[in-house]
Parts: sequence; C-alpha cells; structure tokens
Amino acid sequence: MIKVSVIGAHGRMGRTVVGAVDSADDMELSQQLDASDSFDLVNSGNTDIAVDFTVPSVTLNNVLELVRRGISVVVGTTGWTDERFEEVRKALAENPGVGVFIAPNFAISAVLADHFAGVAARYFESAEVIELHHPDKVDAPSGTAIHTAHTIADARREAGLGSVPDGTQGGMDSRGEVVDGIHVHAVRLRGLNAHEEVLLGNAGEQLTIRADSFDRGSFMPGVLLAIRNMATGAHSGLIVGLDSFLDL
Amino acid sequence: MIKVSVIGAHGRMGRTVVGAVDSADDMELSQQLDASDSFDLVNSGNTDIAVDFTVPSVTLNNVLELVRRGISVVVGTTGWTDERFEEVRKALAENPGVGVFIAPNFAISAVLADHFAGVAARYFESAEVIELHHPDKVDAPSGTAIHTAHTIADARREAGLGSVPDGTQGGMDSRGEVVDGIHVHAVRLRGLNAHEEVLLGNAGEQLTIRADSFDRGSFMPGVLLAIRNMATGAHSGLIVGLDSFLDL
Amino acid sequence: MIKVSVIGAHGRMGRTVVGAVDSADDMELSQQLDASDSFDLVNSGNTDIAVDFTVPSVTLNNVLELVRRGISVVVGTTGWTDERFEEVRKALAENPGVGVFIAPNFAISAVLADHFAGVAARYFESAEVIELHHPDKVDAPSGTAIHTAHTIADARREAGLGSVPDGTQGGMDSRGEVVDGIHVHAVRLRGLNAHEEVLLGNAGEQLTIRADSFDRGSFMPGVLLAIRNMATGAHSGLIVGLDSFLDL
Amino acid sequence: MIKVSVIGAHGRMGRTVVGAVDSADDMELSQQLDASDSFDLVNSGNTDIAVDFTVPSVTLNNVLELVRRGISVVVGTTGWTDERFEEVRKALAENPGVGVFIAPNFAISAVLADHFAGVAARYFESAEVIELHHPDKVDAPSGTAIHTAHTIADARREAGLGSVPDGTQGGMDSRGEVVDGIHVHAVRLRGLNAHEEVLLGNAGEQLTIRADSFDRGSFMPGVLLAIRNMATGAHSGLIVGLDSFLDL
Repeated sequence: MIKVSVIGAHGRMGRTVVGAVDSADDMELSQQLDASDSFDLVNSGNTDIAVDFTVPSVTLNNVLELVRRGISVVVGTTGWTDERFEEVRKALAENPGVGVFIAPNFAISAVLADHFAGVAARYFESAEVIELHHPDKVDAPSGTAIHTAHTIADARREAGLGSVPDGTQGGMDSRGEVVDGIHVHAVRLRGLNAHEEVLLGNAGEQLTIRADSFDRGSFMPGVLLAIRNMATGAHSGLIVGLDSFLDL
Repeated sequence: MIKVSVIGAHGRMGRTVVGAVDSADDMELSQQLDASDSFDLVNSGNTDIAVDFTVPSVTLNNVLELVRRGISVVVGTTGWTDERFEEVRKALAENPGVGVFIAPNFAISAVLADHFAGVAARYFESAEVIELHHPDKVDAPSGTAIHTAHTIADARREAGLGSVPDGTQGGMDSRGEVVDGIHVHAVRLRGLNAHEEVLLGNAGEQLTIRADSFDRGSFMPGVLLAIRNMATGAHSGLIVGLDSFLDL
Repeated sequence: MIKVSVIGAHGRMGRTVVGAVDSADDMELSQQLDASDSFDLVNSGNTDIAVDFTVPSVTLNNVLELVRRGISVVVGTTGWTDERFEEVRKALAENPGVGVFIAPNFAISAVLADHFAGVAARYFESAEVIELHHPDKVDAPSGTAIHTAHTIADARREAGLGSVPDGTQGGMDSRGEVVDGIHVHAVRLRGLNAHEEVLLGNAGEQLTIRADSFDRGSFMPGVLLAIRNMATGAHSGLIVGLDSFLDL
Repeated sequence: MIKVSVIGAHGRMGRTVVGAVDSADDMELSQQLDASDSFDLVNSGNTDIAVDFTVPSVTLNNVLELVRRGISVVVGTTGWTDERFEEVRKALAENPGVGVFIAPNFAISAVLADHFAGVAARYFESAEVIELHHPDKVDAPSGTAIHTAHTIADARREAGLGSVPDGTQGGMDSRGEVVDGIHVHAVRLRGLNAHEEVLLGNAGEQLTIRADSFDRGSFMPGVLLAIRNMATGAHSGLIVGLDSFLDL
C-alpha cells in the first residue's frame, strides 16, 4: 500500500484527489493538510508520496518543505517558472533519493493527443487545432492548444514541410489565431469543460485526434499514475510532464 | 417519366447532373446543351424541366430564354441578385404556369442543418458555428456559415436571449469572426470538401448538428428533389431555396 | 416569482433541482419535502408548482396528493404506465385548472435530436443510431435510442422509403440491433454519461445530429422550461413529453 | 526523378496512381501496363519502382516477373497469404538488392490510428471501435477494425488490464461484435467511404482517434511515401505494412 498525504486537501481539486486515493486499491490515505496545518504532520513514516494541489503562491514553499523532510511530491498546482524549477532542483540536490514530479496537465487523453499530433503531423499536408472550453475561461486559446500547435509546427519543420495550404483572401478573422504557423480556434460553449481536437488532412483523408476532459475527475487517472511511478522510488530529482510516465 | 434537359451539360456540375438524371428511375435525359448550342433544341415537347448549371454571366439569359419557351427551370448557378430575380419575375408574369427554382445550396443536409439551428437556438445559452472546407477556397467564413449565424441570431433575438456568454479577455483572434453576435470559425484542411458544424450548449448538455458535403454528388439528391417538385406543375413563379420543397 | 416546492428534495436529482430553482431569477424555492414529510406542508399559498423527482413506487401517490390540493406538478420520476396515466387523468378531471406534466427525458438536446431525426429521415437513403453511455447502464440500447429508431422508421414509412441499403453478408453481430428496421449501436465507455448520435446519409452527403448529456445538470434547463410553462396556468390536464413546450 | 511504372494502369486504382505519380514533383511516369501488355516493356533502365494495383489472381506472378527483372515493387493489391509471401521471399533471395513492399492499407491516417490505439489503450479503462463504410461493403466488421481491436486487446493484456467494464444485461445485439474482448460496431451509410473511430475512456475523460478515407485518393500519400522509401535503395527484401516507413 502506498501511503499518500494530500496538501490542499480541502480545495476542490484536493477533495477530488482525496476521493481518488481513497478508492485506489493499492493506496492508503494518510494526512490531509490545509493552509493552516503544520508540515510536521507529514513524515516519512506516515507518507510515501505527498500530493500538492494548492495555489501558485504557496506551492513552491510546500514542495521545498516536503523535500527537506525527505518526502517525494506529486504537484498539480500551476504557476511554475524556470526560477522556481531551479529552487526545487537545488533542494533535491541536497536530498538525494527524493523526487518531485510536476505536470501542467494530468489528463492522460490530453497528453496523448499532444504526443500523437507530433508523431502524425509530419505525414499530413494540413493541420489545425480546435480547443473548446466553458465560457468562463478567461484566456484563449488555451495553453494546451498553444503547446499542441508548437508540437505540430516542430514536427512539420523537422519533416521539411512548408507552411500549411490556405487560399483564403480576406476574412482572416474566422481563420483563428496563427500560433507558430498553425491555425488555432477557440470555442466557448456552456456545458463544456476542456476539450481539444487536432485535425490533420491529406488529399482524400483526414486524421482527427480529440481529447475530452469532462470534469475534474479526468485528472485522477493521471494523478494516480504519477503517484504509482514516484512510489517505485525509481524516479528521483525533478521530473516535469506526464509523458515521462507514459510509454510513448 | 420526367423529361430533363441539362444546360451547361459539359461542365463539372453539369456532367454530374447528367449522370444523376440518367440514374433516376423516374427521369429521362433529353437534351444536353453547352455554350455553343442553340436553345431551339429545347422545347416543351422534349423537355419537362431544364436544369441550368452554367456560370453567373450567362445564367440569367438562359433562364429568360427557357421561360419564354414555356419551360420550367431548376437553377444551380450562383451570382443571383435582387435585380436579376426581378427580371425573372417579369418574364414569369408573361408566361403563366411556368416556374423557376433557384437555390444557393442544393445539399439537403446543409439546408436542414441551417433550419434545425434556427429551431434549436432559442433553447440554448451558447451557440457557435464551425465551417470546414478544402484549402483552395478563397472566402472565409463560407456563405452558408454566415447564413447559419444569422439564422441563430434571429432565433435568439426572437426568444429574448441576450448575447452569448464569453469570459475571454484578450486573445480574441482565436475566437473567430463574430457574425451577428455569433462566433464563426473557418477551418481549411486538405482532404475536406464542404462541412458545417453547429454547436449549441446549455449547462450539462450539448446539441451538435453537422452537415458534410463530401463531393459534387452531394447536391444531386437536392437537384432531383427540385426537378420532381417542379415537374408536378404545382409550383409556378419564382421559388428560391431548397427549404421550399422540404416539409419543415 | 414562481413559487416552487420540491418533492424528493434530498435525492440526487432533487438536490440538483433545488439548486437550479434557487439559481433561477424568476423562481423562489418554497418547500423541500422528503419521504418522511407530510404533504400538508405544501399548499396553494406557498406553492405555484411542485416538482417530483422521487421513485416509481411513490410518484403516483405524490402526484395524486398534490392534484387534490390543487397544485400543478412537474414530474421527472420514471415508471409511468397507461394505467397510471389514467389515474392521474381521473384526479385531474375532478380538479379542473390543475395540470400535471410528465417527461421521460428532460434533456432539451435529446428531445430536439429525436424530433430533428424525424424531420430529416425522409430525405436520406440511410439512417443509423449510435447511443453511448457509461458502462454501469444495464439496458441496451437505451430507451431514448429505441424511441429515435421508431421516429426515423415512421418518417421513412410516411415518405415511402423502403428498407435501408445494407450489402452486409455475414458478420451481422457488428451491425447492431435492428429496431423497426433501423440499426442501433450501443457503446459503453467509462467517462461518458448519456449521448446519442443520429447518422443520415445520401450519396455524397451526411447529416449528423448529436445530443450530449454530460451530467444531471443537463436536465435542469428542461425542468425550468416545464416549470415556467406550467406556471403560466395555460396548461391544465395531463401533458406528456418536453416537446409539448418546444416550438417545433 | 524517380521513374515509376504502373502495372494495372487502367484499373480504377491504377488510374489514380498514374495521376498521383504524374503530379508528384520528384517522380516521372514511365510505363503503364495493363493485363495484355508484356513485362518486357519494363526494365531497370526505364523503371526505378513498379507499382502493382491489379487483382489477387495475377499480382503474385506480376511481382515475381518484376523481381526477376531486378525491379523493386510497391504492391497495393490484396489477397496475400503466408505461402505467397514465401514465394516472394524466395525470388528476392535470388535477386539481392531488389525489394518488395506490400501493404494491406495505404491510408496513412488509418495506419496511424491503429498505431495510436495500441499506444493509448494501456492507459484507459474502456475501449471500443466503430467502423463506418458505404452500404455496398459485404464484410462486417472491416478487416481494419478487426486489426485495431486486436491491437487494443494486445496492449491491454500487456498492461495487465482486465476485461472492459460492461454492466449490460440482455440486449447484447446492440453492443456489437466482440473481437478479442473489444466491442466493434459497424455502421453502413450511403455517402460514406471508409472510416474508423477508436474511443477510449477513463473516469471523466475520453480520447477519440478517427481516420477518414473519403475516396481512392486517400491512398495516394501512402503510395507515394512507399515509392520514395523504396527508391532510396535502402530497403531490400520483403517489407509488409506502411508503418515500416512511418517514424513511430
């Protein structure tokens, strides 16, 4: 049984993590910490892996506290920068055998879609990205869609493909935002959560890769995958991105 | 048997019409005219319905010639204006019992999608349109998508719905062209022909209506439907739009 | 303000209704009854419309109790039969001006998809239905999909269309269940809730109508629509089916 | 310039290949052979690569004739068996440096979809396959869909996943054909050509991979890819499957 403690256990994502760990046959829920709780509650006796789903302003300190206590961490909080990564690496260097895993996206379907887009893009004349989200989202296009556009553009460059064919004259507003040469469209629709569609086309054929995240629960298979991988003890140091634990 | 003559019979659409009429059990292919042929070849003895798929510069004259000969016409050529419609109406007034049917789109799926979008739109908080075409298309968004956006906007106004929810701050390039308050996205992909998707969303639910036109053959069921309706003799005068012959 | 009381207020659907009524600008939440509560709490002074989301074994008695008290009811509980409808009609006959609305499906998207399938089916050579649900569902295909298959079959018969083209020789297992001549496929996939896709095809063209119900919230727009319609007082007697309140 | 000769040049696929080679900037169309033509027309002087799109009854002889003449071949004809492969291998052993490439499917999108299904399947609780074709197809489900079902099943076994969750009681007709534990559904719809959709689901998330082949032209990018790879001279012997030339 992997003993898991959850930091930010009373937030919306934290509660979802608590439920997922509780339901996993190979895991045991240990400590549930909130902002007011001391990290002294967490130690290597009661915790194999800590999971941090808090807020950008505190996550770095949480991770540093846990690393110093010799606890490996799985982090779903956003707001990470190269400077912050560097601080984590320094702390890890002083605590060999401890690992920190940070992922910008825990949805396995989204991570696979991005990867597949990169593999496939070199074989198609055309490529576009449509992302679809709930209408309360403030940024557009989504960070995931921007990442996928770069993934596609990189693959096309490597394969020596030129720019995508586009005979449009005028009316470019409807053609989306051009990210690294790839047209990206953002749909905002009540009822949706977070979705991405990659469209690849050749004469007579189309390949479509679509990732749907219907709710917060969509991140749990990825979170559990990360916990299980970190719990093997085989991964120390700083690891970024769920693709590290996917056999691609 | 309905005797059908085809004007513009050697053009790409004309040839497709010739084939479709030939295959229809209840139709008989009569005359096939090209630009160099005289309209004297077409008369009420050998032709019940003439079909015109030519070019905007000659279609008005073709229609007037046929109407004067007492032949009802089904027209798939584009480029019609209110002035041109008026000239046709004048000629029809002098030839009672003759009918002219003109449609901007003969794809039944596209006409139905537009109609359904109008019926459904009043019941949904959100609505967006995505049109997808081959990359050689010069205009964007497509005329069909613009029409559908207006259909949706009209339905929303009639139902007293306000503007669609959209919390986007910045990055509006990816949010498409706003046509009458409705966001319209245009995808250009090699391998595609002409496609439209209407997305309607409420909390927890989505309705999607999609029309795919894979090739020129997609217009033939609509052309045959128009020929059959005009051949009943029940429709005289000028009739515009395939929805006239659909039981909606 | 429409005063709404909820029967079965502590069940999963009941709680969702309580939340939806609470959020509606034109409604006021009055009584919340559970199995142990007396109907004496509900009267025409504090309640314009009662909503019943309980269980098949008690819903008929609930409705009869409310009708006798002169309260119009919106019912989302399943398990209704012709015999039960008859008992409701009798009670309503003795209480003129009172109305009871019962719907097998409150998802507007699903009701519209079924209606559109019927309108469109007469114009297409081929038609099939795919329904997709979570894997814990015990029946297959879904009642909604069976209903849609009949809707399509009725429209085809009325239009004089014969059977759908199908050249399959052997391997019929993969061709789905044939309901009234229409092939119906049932997909069971973790992560899904309740979804239906109607595919209609002609040479060169396809029309797809898809209804997605992502969660219980998907029924709320339909429940609110029914409450608002019943609250106008214009509808007395027994009314079955959400399409009664849609302008189709 | 790669000099390409086409065997079966007047068949439907052959003509499409002739057109595609003609349009390719780096290829030159050399001989076009039909059933009545002698292989003496093809020699290593005028032909770098021969392409065979004929019929199962003659393709083996064609390939052997070409191999003996020292010409590498790209084969799109079906009907290959282990015995036939063995004959080709023998001929190739006697003609070192010559290569024969045979693919059951030249649609890049279909080959990639199958590959991606195998990579992704190990990370999802549920998986199903829907294939959609024109209604004149006699077999169901398609060979491609059966292959994909095995690909998914292999990946699930390797990952230690058990059977897919399915609570269906009765009504199994609608649940498709179970191929190696995976439910496969076959849709037949006028207007379609050849399409496959792989649906993968976890709690809260879905990954969909869809390959559309709209017409015969969809095989040409794969045929050109094979010609280019064989023309490098780097591939001798017998090579089966387009994935051999994809960087997966």
